[in-house]
Amino acid sequence: MKLAIDAMGGDHAPKEIVLGALKAVEEFPDLYITLVGDETKIKETFVGHDRISIIHTTEVILGTDEPVRAVRRKKNASMVLAAQQVTDGLADACLSAGNTGALMAAGLFVVGRIEGIDRPALAPTLPTIGGEGFLLMDVGANADAKPEHLLQYAIMGSIYSEKVRGIKEPRIGLLNIGTEEKKGNELTKQAFDLLKNAPINFVGNVEARDLLDGVADVVVTDGFTGNMVLKSIEGTAISMFKMLKSTLMSNFTSKLATAVLKPNLMRLKNKLDYSEYGGAGLFGLKAPVIKAHGSSNAQAIYSAIRQTREMVANDVVSLIKETIEKSTSERLVQ
Amino acid sequence: MKLAIDAMGGDHAPKEIVLGALKAVEEFPDLYITLVGDETKIKETFVGHDRISIIHTTEVILGTDEPVRAVRRKKNASMVLAAQQVTDGLADACLSAGNTGALMAAGLFVVGRIEGIDRPALAPTLPTIGGEGFLLMDVGANADAKPEHLLQYAIMGSIYSEKVRGIKEPRIGLLNIGTEEKKGNELTKQAFDLLKNAPINFVGNVEARDLLDGVADVVVTDGFTGNMVLKSIEGTAISMFKMLKSTLMSNFTSKLATAVLKPNLMRLKNKLDYSEYGGAGLFGLKAPVIKAHGSSNAQAIYSAIRQTREMVANDVVSLIKETIEKSTSERLVQ
Repeated sequence: MKLAIDAMGGDHAPKEIVLGALKAVEEFPDLYITLVGDETKIKETFVGHDRISIIHTTEVILGTDEPVRAVRRKKNASMVLAAQQVTDGLADACLSAGNTGALMAAGLFVVGRIEGIDRPALAPTLPTIGGEGFLLMDVGANADAKPEHLLQYAIMGSIYSEKVRGIKEPRIGLLNIGTEEKKGNELTKQAFDLLKNAPINFVGNVEARDLLDGVADVVVTDGFTGNMVLKSIEGTAISMFKMLKSTLMSNFTSKLATAVLKPNLMRLKNKLDYSEYGGAGLFGLKAPVIKAHGSSNAQAIYSAIRQTREMVANDVVSLIKETIEKSTSERLVQ
Repeated sequence: MKLAIDAMGGDHAPKEIVLGALKAVEEFPDLYITLVGDETKIKETFVGHDRISIIHTTEVILGTDEPVRAVRRKKNASMVLAAQQVTDGLADACLSAGNTGALMAAGLFVVGRIEGIDRPALAPTLPTIGGEGFLLMDVGANADAKPEHLLQYAIMGSIYSEKVRGIKEPRIGLLNIGTEEKKGNELTKQAFDLLKNAPINFVGNVEARDLLDGVADVVVTDGFTGNMVLKSIEGTAISMFKMLKSTLMSNFTSKLATAVLKPNLMRLKNKLDYSEYGGAGLFGLKAPVIKAHGSSNAQAIYSAIRQTREMVANDVVSLIKETIEKSTSERLVQ
């Protein structure tokens, strides 16, 4: 199995990307990795490994680049070349911690959609109190979604959760403003009917306030709403940690008490750190394309590689392709 | 000034409602209150006040009632009669801590919309780290919003923030998935153009992750997204407090340290408690209709009454009416 990795994407590239890749090849004897990026910089942290090769390029897509234009114009960017490895059959999947929008564009234009999938979905796994996590899809690949897109997300999320995360009959929830069947906007009302009849374990509408309690294994929503929910959760967690810090550091006695509590607080922070749960998958493409968090360290890159490897090993893409074909033809017959 | 209050709505009715009302009339010498509800139950915590009168009724709308049907059928429900006081000119505004959907229906069918306002908006004030708070509108009165609705929300929110919250030139932000002008879904792209030309201090797109940092004084969005963001923030805060508690209580040393920190942690919790910021206003109706949080205690009811009083005293409704008329005629001329 071979993965192509954009060595230049993310806040700590290429160092942490290279270290993550090294850890992964040491862990998985069947894994070959192609690092794409500036060879000189890569070799600063890299003594060489017989299962890691390098494709040299100095062109990079920046976080500030306009995604679609960047992918179209920077044909030799590390991210684009990594995606090209997949298209050329030289890699089974690709991974980047760089510009999210650009990776979606590279996935769409370079790797390409599975036939029958209207829109790919970007789906991170978010933490829950219990630690099991849930897949939120879509979080922004597709701002204006149709009910049929949500149905496809549900099918893709269900297959992924079962095959890669090992969840039997994953519970699929529809994100909505209430749990009752008739609740919501036009999109969710129509999506509800489609999901009810889909080959999945649909548990109905779920509310945003219950997400961290683990109310479902896969939560489907349009990209606009998903992005809002993702960023609200992130923003609230970050703000609370800031407030907690300034509250706890306000006087000497509490500073002392905080020192005692620090290991516990760090554990809490780690529990909420969604980079621990691997990268965000771009679902609906002809091969797995994984977006690692921009702030990824070696451990987070390693987690994302492990996740990508599982997707390839379990042939998630073929399963999605077959199930979508079957589901579409069944709906056409009805 | 006279306020009609649903004495039977909320988790702690009528006791906390009555206590909140008593505190308010003692604070404001110009305030008259009509409590609507079960007289016997109300009098259990009420020795009488010369500026508080009671309208007796035993009918109540429950939290589980289907909102529109409940308002149409339970004509003598405490909430409906409180709204009726406003329509009949016997009260300047009304307030309830009961069924949110039913209060929206009572506002719409009994109190009625301001001419020119297409859809009312439900808008709570949410906490920020700095403590100033921000108005989020809409959070669910109107799940499928049009760009023109968002424009009206912005105008109403701006007037309210200036007159009631005393903010000069309130910063109005459009909730979106990125800060750049061209970002978003069809709704936000079109709304952006309308807001740019509106008689408000429009600060552009704002992201969900920056809300608690106080990125704007008023944040406009469709009711579906607003509801999602509100519940994501609530849910994350609640989950984090739960996790914090179980983390901190995990052994004896940390229990001891936690005891020292408790006052600080309580202060943090209060800062994030949005019932401290008054009730949620239903904007766009012919008179102020305020929804207090269902779990309101006397202090929260008092805050909501104070807020309602400010809306009446500053004649927010007339100002909204005039500004909307002017804005609409100007847009028609263009």
